[in-house]
Amino acid sequence: MTNLTMLTDLYQLNMMYAYWKSGIADKRVVFDLYFRRPPFGNGYAVCAGLEQALEAVLGLAFTEDDLAYLKSIHPYEEAFLDELRRFRFTGDIWAVPEGTVVFPYEPLLRVEARIFEAQLLETALLNLVNHQTLIATKAARVVEAASGDGVLEFGLRRAQGPDAGLYGARAAYIGGADATSNVLAGKRFGIPVRGTHAHAFVMSFPSELEAFRAFAAAFPDNAVLLVDTYDTLRSGVPNAIRVGQELRARGFDLAGIRLDSGDLAYLSKEARRMLDAAGFTKTRIVASSDLDELLIRDLKVQGAAIDTWGVGTHLITAKDDPALTGVYKLVAEEENGRLIPRIKVSENPAKVTIPGKKKVIRFYDRDTGEALADLIMLHDEPVPTGEPFEIFDPVHPYRRKTLCNYEVRELLVPVVIGGQPVYDLPSLDEVRRYSLEERSRFSPEVRRLVNPHEYPVDLSEALWKLRNRLLLEARGR
Amino acid sequence: MTNLTMLTDLYQLNMMYAYWKSGIADKRVVFDLYFRRPPFGNGYAVCAGLEQALEAVLGLAFTEDDLAYLKSIHPYEEAFLDELRRFRFTGDIWAVPEGTVVFPYEPLLRVEARIFEAQLLETALLNLVNHQTLIATKAARVVEAASGDGVLEFGLRRAQGPDAGLYGARAAYIGGADATSNVLAGKRFGIPVRGTHAHAFVMSFPSELEAFRAFAAAFPDNAVLLVDTYDTLRSGVPNAIRVGQELRARGFDLAGIRLDSGDLAYLSKEARRMLDAAGFTKTRIVASSDLDELLIRDLKVQGAAIDTWGVGTHLITAKDDPALTGVYKLVAEEENGRLIPRIKVSENPAKVTIPGKKKVIRFYDRDTGEALADLIMLHDEPVPTGEPFEIFDPVHPYRRKTLCNYEVRELLVPVVIGGQPVYDLPSLDEVRRYSLEERSRFSPEVRRLVNPHEYPVDLSEALWKLRNRLLLEARGR
Repeated sequence: MTNLTMLTDLYQLNMMYAYWKSGIADKRVVFDLYFRRPPFGNGYAVCAGLEQALEAVLGLAFTEDDLAYLKSIHPYEEAFLDELRRFRFTGDIWAVPEGTVVFPYEPLLRVEARIFEAQLLETALLNLVNHQTLIATKAARVVEAASGDGVLEFGLRRAQGPDAGLYGARAAYIGGADATSNVLAGKRFGIPVRGTHAHAFVMSFPSELEAFRAFAAAFPDNAVLLVDTYDTLRSGVPNAIRVGQELRARGFDLAGIRLDSGDLAYLSKEARRMLDAAGFTKTRIVASSDLDELLIRDLKVQGAAIDTWGVGTHLITAKDDPALTGVYKLVAEEENGRLIPRIKVSENPAKVTIPGKKKVIRFYDRDTGEALADLIMLHDEPVPTGEPFEIFDPVHPYRRKTLCNYEVRELLVPVVIGGQPVYDLPSLDEVRRYSLEERSRFSPEVRRLVNPHEYPVDLSEALWKLRNRLLLEARGR
Repeated sequence: MTNLTMLTDLYQLNMMYAYWKSGIADKRVVFDLYFRRPPFGNGYAVCAGLEQALEAVLGLAFTEDDLAYLKSIHPYEEAFLDELRRFRFTGDIWAVPEGTVVFPYEPLLRVEARIFEAQLLETALLNLVNHQTLIATKAARVVEAASGDGVLEFGLRRAQGPDAGLYGARAAYIGGADATSNVLAGKRFGIPVRGTHAHAFVMSFPSELEAFRAFAAAFPDNAVLLVDTYDTLRSGVPNAIRVGQELRARGFDLAGIRLDSGDLAYLSKEARRMLDAAGFTKTRIVASSDLDELLIRDLKVQGAAIDTWGVGTHLITAKDDPALTGVYKLVAEEENGRLIPRIKVSENPAKVTIPGKKKVIRFYDRDTGEALADLIMLHDEPVPTGEPFEIFDPVHPYRRKTLCNYEVRELLVPVVIGGQPVYDLPSLDEVRRYSLEERSRFSPEVRRLVNPHEYPVDLSEALWKLRNRLLLEARGR
């Protein structure tokens, strides 16, 4: 990744300048990065982007070129530019591992550092984590809808720039996609790459049959033929079968056909029938054509004979909800050497922050492994160790539930301590496997695509009381 | 920009391999890049991304590392990898200059090259041009709604990755935004940068007043104070006025205040009244808070006293329509040394291509300068030179209109010839100025935000006849 130091909002630098001039640049603070609402009406989000976020933080360094530019836009004092020249991140970051199922208000990253440093991290962290979490969550929905079928990420041409294609492919893989069309993502991240051919390929040969033969000659053992350039059932599928027979005569088989237009339910069933009748029962049918998770689910309800789903625009842009509105909020600051919880009040209750330096724990059923509830606690509260534990809804505290026979796990782990990386980054395949496994621990009702069951994310009693006290104090201000 | 050679779909490389193995890699072809529908229900799009597209094309070169990776995913023949090793773009590209108002089916880029080369360009060209054209068009709508007020692009933290923020800021500037918060975009592209401060800044001082004083001390001549951390009208605005008075005593003035929540219509009017009453009639009011063009228009209808609009998520992600579905289609290919027009037929009439190597001309009223109509023609047809010229609707040919007293301009200009750049890239400021000027030549009915008038984009008679002939031939196949 290139140096992202300047990938920031000007106001971060301006605040750093004002902190520095006011003599409070070294004050220790805690910021939480979290979101307030899962995208797409989903019941959860899949956290992603941590690896790139850490690269960005550990690589923070202003070049002389950067400083010269800053000098050109505002008469910052030289001593401040010297501070920037010396800038390195020296604080602590705790984070939820990539691929984890996460919920609103849970800190995905917790940054504790000098305010001068913590402030600079905001924009890049939000940019990277918002984007990848969004796409990983969209992919999780597509994978849920495909319920075991293959899912291919095909969206690079519609992605919002090169990085959106590259990191989008990475996030889609974390979310459970099986492969991508993006060669750079394959090379950079080891994601399996897949590709067939385009209509232009067919058109650039004198006939569809000759085009198919040419493609099969180049890829005898894994040709997937696009059959809808002229007429899917009268030309494309019969020609594919003919080339399949020629492949068989040479000891190969026809790997697949691809449908890219028309009524995919009808065409796939007819194509399946024709392929099966010709003995190509193992030839896969790949479909693409402006697909999203709801269309996939609908096609499956109609009995479409589709084995692999190529999903482009809707996945790579998260089309129906293209921004995760993650935020980065001050939750504690040093006063006389101690961290004091801070709250941001708002007329909009959803925008009131949860104060203090916190941790998040997840309760699992000890027998079934099912995720039961999450609890946001103050960082120094003891974690329950198995005794019956009562949780309550922070908005409607009369809604209570006692958990027994559980195991707990802390979601935030240390990733940077004193500016040094302390986290062994898992491989992308490990992240993907972990994410699919973790998701399987949530009930189908939490995972369903429309109107999911609301998974309980409660506050510890101490945190709830702290929040109420600070809210009342703020009101009395 | 980094080398984008591998930023491609695997199927491009696989098609190149099959072309090469079939001995047709050198066949000359023409591809058009165009879109079928303007985004957001807008009446037009603003073309952008050409500069990055040209950088990508002229920088195409496979590294040994790339080739080793390709070898690892498929047993491509060594001689093919040698072809890739030698790969440079040697063809021609004609393009519509950035900032131009463009319409469906008009080629934004026309690539003429060996099919081996033209095919590789597809993904990167679409990625870059789709993205920037999308964001420039969204910005044009926001600027239209702001009708002369300042517009700031503030979206980096919600952009789909670093590039989406960087190139999105560039495209927003082309679309008419006045500045960005993105420091990297400022440095890279010379876009003016702006920034205020966050709520965290206010919270990290013992009081709002002290925070404002600290910020004003750092930025005495351009402080914009965020007034909604605690209570906009009872605390924020009075404190801002107090600090403004202190600034005045030192010979400065209060540059502005920023509203970031609540009822912006009401709060801005009240804040304006309070500022004016205290003599701060020149202090600007900046608003931000999930704004888009329709909300801005609505706030203006309500008489909101807002001078500058900070637009984030909606602009940088094109939230209501986050992908321009540009396509790249084969329109002609060499046969016996001549370019033969090709058509792609589809059951969906919108997906039928316009065959042949083409150019686009725009008619302007000679007196008023108003844009009257566009005409897509075959590349070797003579351009009308002032004689009365009848255009007709290609779908409903009885709808005809005779143009008189016009000037014409060709939209496509040569940018790469024989692989060499031949285009003097205008500066970004020139692009922006040109775009605003060009847009002013379209009637307000074409430019309006909802249900715009459909601007005529017709086919020349020769092109229309060619298309009909090829359609009938394809049907008879």
